Amino acid sequence: MISKESAKAVMSITVGELAEKIGGRAEGDVTRTIHGVAPLRSADGRALSWIGHPKYAGELRNTQAAAVLVPNDCVAPAGLTVIRVADPDLAMCAVLRLLAPTRDNIAAGVHATATVASDACVAGAAIGPHAHIGPRSVIGANTQIHAGAYVGADVRVGRDCVIWPNVVIREGTIIGDRVNIHPNATIGADGFGYLQRAGRHVKVPQIGIVEIGDDVEIGANTCIDRAKSGVTRIGEGTKIDNLVQIAHNVEIGPNCIIVALTGLGGSCVIGEQTMIGGSVGVADHVRLGRGAMIAAKAGVDRDVADGGRVAGMPAVESRKFWRQVSLTGELPELKRELRRLMERIEKLESATDDQA
Amino acid sequence: MISKESAKAVMSITVGELAEKIGGRAEGDVTRTIHGVAPLRSADGRALSWIGHPKYAGELRNTQAAAVLVPNDCVAPAGLTVIRVADPDLAMCAVLRLLAPTRDNIAAGVHATATVASDACVAGAAIGPHAHIGPRSVIGANTQIHAGAYVGADVRVGRDCVIWPNVVIREGTIIGDRVNIHPNATIGADGFGYLQRAGRHVKVPQIGIVEIGDDVEIGANTCIDRAKSGVTRIGEGTKIDNLVQIAHNVEIGPNCIIVALTGLGGSCVIGEQTMIGGSVGVADHVRLGRGAMIAAKAGVDRDVADGGRVAGMPAVESRKFWRQVSLTGELPELKRELRRLMERIEKLESATDDQA
Amino acid sequence: MISKESAKAVMSITVGELAEKIGGRAEGDVTRTIHGVAPLRSADGRALSWIGHPKYAGELRNTQAAAVLVPNDCVAPAGLTVIRVADPDLAMCAVLRLLAPTRDNIAAGVHATATVASDACVAGAAIGPHAHIGPRSVIGANTQIHAGAYVGADVRVGRDCVIWPNVVIREGTIIGDRVNIHPNATIGADGFGYLQRAGRHVKVPQIGIVEIGDDVEIGANTCIDRAKSGVTRIGEGTKIDNLVQIAHNVEIGPNCIIVALTGLGGSCVIGEQTMIGGSVGVADHVRLGRGAMIAAKAGVDRDVADGGRVAGMPAVESRKFWRQVSLTGELPELKRELRRLMERIEKLESATDDQA
Repeated sequence: MISKESAKAVMSITVGELAEKIGGRAEGDVTRTIHGVAPLRSADGRALSWIGHPKYAGELRNTQAAAVLVPNDCVAPAGLTVIRVADPDLAMCAVLRLLAPTRDNIAAGVHATATVASDACVAGAAIGPHAHIGPRSVIGANTQIHAGAYVGADVRVGRDCVIWPNVVIREGTIIGDRVNIHPNATIGADGFGYLQRAGRHVKVPQIGIVEIGDDVEIGANTCIDRAKSGVTRIGEGTKIDNLVQIAHNVEIGPNCIIVALTGLGGSCVIGEQTMIGGSVGVADHVRLGRGAMIAAKAGVDRDVADGGRVAGMPAVESRKFWRQVSLTGELPELKRELRRLMERIEKLESATDDQA
Repeated sequence: MISKESAKAVMSITVGELAEKIGGRAEGDVTRTIHGVAPLRSADGRALSWIGHPKYAGELRNTQAAAVLVPNDCVAPAGLTVIRVADPDLAMCAVLRLLAPTRDNIAAGVHATATVASDACVAGAAIGPHAHIGPRSVIGANTQIHAGAYVGADVRVGRDCVIWPNVVIREGTIIGDRVNIHPNATIGADGFGYLQRAGRHVKVPQIGIVEIGDDVEIGANTCIDRAKSGVTRIGEGTKIDNLVQIAHNVEIGPNCIIVALTGLGGSCVIGEQTMIGGSVGVADHVRLGRGAMIAAKAGVDRDVADGGRVAGMPAVESRKFWRQVSLTGELPELKRELRRLMERIEKLESATDDQA
Repeated sequence: MISKESAKAVMSITVGELAEKIGGRAEGDVTRTIHGVAPLRSADGRALSWIGHPKYAGELRNTQAAAVLVPNDCVAPAGLTVIRVADPDLAMCAVLRLLAPTRDNIAAGVHATATVASDACVAGAAIGPHAHIGPRSVIGANTQIHAGAYVGADVRVGRDCVIWPNVVIREGTIIGDRVNIHPNATIGADGFGYLQRAGRHVKVPQIGIVEIGDDVEIGANTCIDRAKSGVTRIGEGTKIDNLVQIAHNVEIGPNCIIVALTGLGGSCVIGEQTMIGGSVGVADHVRLGRGAMIAAKAGVDRDVADGGRVAGMPAVESRKFWRQVSLTGELPELKRELRRLMERIEKLESATDDQA
C-alpha cells in the first residue's frame, strides 16, 4: 500500500503504456489510468495490484483494482484487466521505479555552493550543495553526489551512481557503475592497525585503497576501511546494510548480502553469494566459502566451507547449534535425571552390600 | 558535580527566584545566590544540592550547600535553606536546564551559507551553516536545524525540535514536536530489500516513509530506514540511543527505550514502554509485547508476550536463561559425576556377574 | 605491496637519504633510488623491502629489491644493499609515512566556504571547505579540520590533529595533540539518561564534557557521549575502531585498544592497556582492570581483574568459557551416556529384584 506521502509523487499512466514500458502483455481495458499501487484487497479503481504466482488466481475475483500484474500462465476472471508478465514481483519493482521515483534526485551540474577541484572531472554528473570533490577525481555521467558528501583526491566514481548526503569517500577509492551509497557512510578511512611497542600502539600507515564493484549498495553509516596496502574489495552486486564494519584488506565476492551491525575483521575473504545475517562478527583472516550462510548474531572464528551454514558463538554447523540449544534447554532435566540415577545406584550398592 | 567547563555556562540566580521557576517552596535565606549544582558532600556555599528521598535527611546536617532541594515531607535541620518540591530528582533536571543550557543553540533565521528551497517553509526556525532544506519541506517554529544537516524534499519537522549537525533526513519524513536527533543520524534511507533472481539481488524500491512522534530522541549515528511501502513508525516519547538500526516497516510504540548498537529487523512491532538493552538483535517480523524487557546482547527470533523478559541467543525467558547459564557452568562437574556413576555401575555389574 | 593507486603518491628518495631520515645505517649502493615498498618476493629493483627478524635472513638471497631494511644484527648476503635499524617493522612505518603520505592533507588557513566564529582561534590550523568552528573554540597549530566537520562552542583541539570530514565535535570537548578522528564520528553528543515517571522518560540534562588525551585515534562513525556531569575521558594513546559506542561518564585509561562495534555502558572504568575485542558489550558501571583482555562478542556484566581474560555472554574467565564450549559440544554424547547408564541400572535393578 502506498502511503499518502509516497502517493504524492505518483504519476499517472494508462494500463497500455505501463505494459509497454515493463515489457508485459495487457488484456482488457488498456485505456484505464493507473495512479498508484496497492495489494489486491485494498486496491481501489485507480490502483495497480499484483499476484506473484498462479496459485493466488482465486483472489483475483473480488479485487477492485484497475488492473493486476499476473504471471503469463495465470487464468484470470473474465472482465478483469491484467498485464501478463513472466515475473510479477520483478515487474512490480519496475512499476515502482516508474511510478514512485525518489523526489530527492538532483539535476546535473555543479551547485553553486559545492567545492570542486579545478582538475577534477565531473562532466555529466550532479554535484549537490556543499559537496566536495577533491583533486584529480573523476565522477561519471548521470551520477549524483548529494549535499555535504565528500569525495577526496584521486577518487573514481562510475556512471549512474547515487552518493547520498554526508557520505565520506576518502582518497584513491575506486567505485563502479550504478553504485548506491547511503547517507553518512564512510568509505576508505584508515584501517585499524598498530604495532605494539613498550605498551604503546604505533600506527601502521594505511596506504591501500577501497575498490567497489558495479551495482553494489552500501547502507547508511556503514564503514569500509582502506587496505593497509593493496585493496579492500567489494564484489559487484553485493548489498551491504546499515552500520556494517568492513575492516582493511577484506575481499568480498560478488552478489553477497551482509545485514546490519555486522563486522568483518581484517583480511577476511568472503566467497560469492554468501549471506551474512545481522550482528555477526567474523574474526580476522577468516574465509567464508561461496554461498555460505551465517546466522544472525554468530561469532565466526574459523573458516566456513562452500555452502556451509553456521550459527552461534563460537559458530558451529547450524544443525549442531540448534541441537546444542535444545540440549542446553534440557540441562535442568538432565541434572535431575543424573540425581535420580545416583539415588538408584546408591540403593543398588546398599542391596549389593547387604548381599555381600 | 559540574565540571569546570560546564560551570562556565552556569548563570547565577537567587534561591527564591529558582524556587519560583521550578514551582518549589523556599525556606530559609531565599536571597542567597546559586552558581551551580553539586552533591551534598562536595557542595560549597555557592552550590545547590539535593536529596531524592526523606530517608537521606540525615545527610543534610553537614552539608555546606547554599540550599538543598528536598522532598515536600522531609524534615530539614534548623537553619538549612531548602526548596521543597514533590520530586527532587525531577526538579534537579529542571534546574540543570535553567542553569546549564547548551551553548550550541543557534538563533532563529537562515544562515547565509544554508541552502533552503524557495518553496520550503522555515519561518521561526533556525537553519545553521551549510544546512540544506529541500523543496516543499516545512520546519516548525523554534526548531533548530544545525550545521551541515540535510532535510530532503517534502519533509515535515514539528516545533521545538533540535536536529544536530550532519543529520540526514530523507524525503517524505514526518517528525513531531520536541524531537531531538543527534549528530550523524540517518532518517529515511532506503530499507534493505531485494528479490533474489538467478543468484543476483534486484532492489525492491523503498517508497514508504518514516514517521516520528512527539518527544522522541534519536541517538548519534543511528539509522531508521524508510518503509518499503507505508510507514516505519517511532511512537511518541520513545528514546533511542546511538548506533541503533531500525529496519523498514518497523513499528515502535510510545515510550520505549532502545539502547545502543541494537538492531530491529524489518516489520518488527514493538509494544509501548518496551525496554530493549544494548547490542540486541531482533529478527524480521518479531513482535515484542507491551512492557517487554529484552536483556542486553539478546538475539530474539520469536515473539515476546506483554511484560515478558527474555535473555540469551536465541532468547528465552530470563530466569530460564540464567538457570541455563548456571548449569552450563556446572557442566564440568556434571561430566565428572557421570564418569563416577559409570564406574560405580561397572562395579555393580561385576558384582552381579560374580553372583550370577 | 603498494597498489598502483597508492604508488601514484610515492616520491623517490635515495637509500642514503632514506637511511638518514629514519635513523638507520645504510650499507652497499646508497645512491640507489627507492620508488616504493614491496615484500621481498615481489619487490623489483625500484622497491624497498624489509625483514622483521634475523631468522628470515635466508630469504634475502633471492630478492630483487633495491634495498632491504634489516635488523642491526642481521647477516646480509654480500652485495645486497641494506639499511640496518633496531626495529625494521617500526622503521617500515616511518618509511611509509615518508613515501606514501595521505593525498588528502589540506593546507593551513581557512577555506573561503568555512564558517569560523569571530572569537574562535584557528591560527596555524587548516580549516576545510564547509567546516564550522564555534564561538571561543581554539584549534591548535598544524591541525586539519576537514570538509564539513563541525566544531561546537568552547572546544579545544590540540596541535597536529586530523579531524576528518563530517566529524561532529559538540560544545566543550577538550582534545589533546596528535589526535586522529575519522569521518562521521560524533564526539560529545548527549548521554542516554532519563528519569522514569509515570511510564514516560524525562530527559536528564547532560551537562558534562568529553576529554580526549594525546595520540588517541577514533574510528569512523564512532560515538563518544558527553558526561551527565563531569567528564567522559579517553586516555592518551588509546585507539578506538569504527562504530564503537562510548556512553556518558566512561573513563578509559591510556593505551587501550577497542575494536569495532563494541559498546561500553555508562560510567564504565577501563584500566590502561586493556584490549577489548569487536562487538563486545560492557554493562553500566563495570570496571575492567589494567591489561584485561575481553574476547570479541563477549557480554561483560561484572568487573574484570587486572590482567583478566574473559569471553562469552555472560563473560567468564576465558579458559572456563572454552571448556564450557567444548562440553556444550559434547552434550549429545553426554545425554546418550546418561541414557545408557539408565538402561544398565534398570538391568541391575531387575537382577537385584530377581535375587530378592
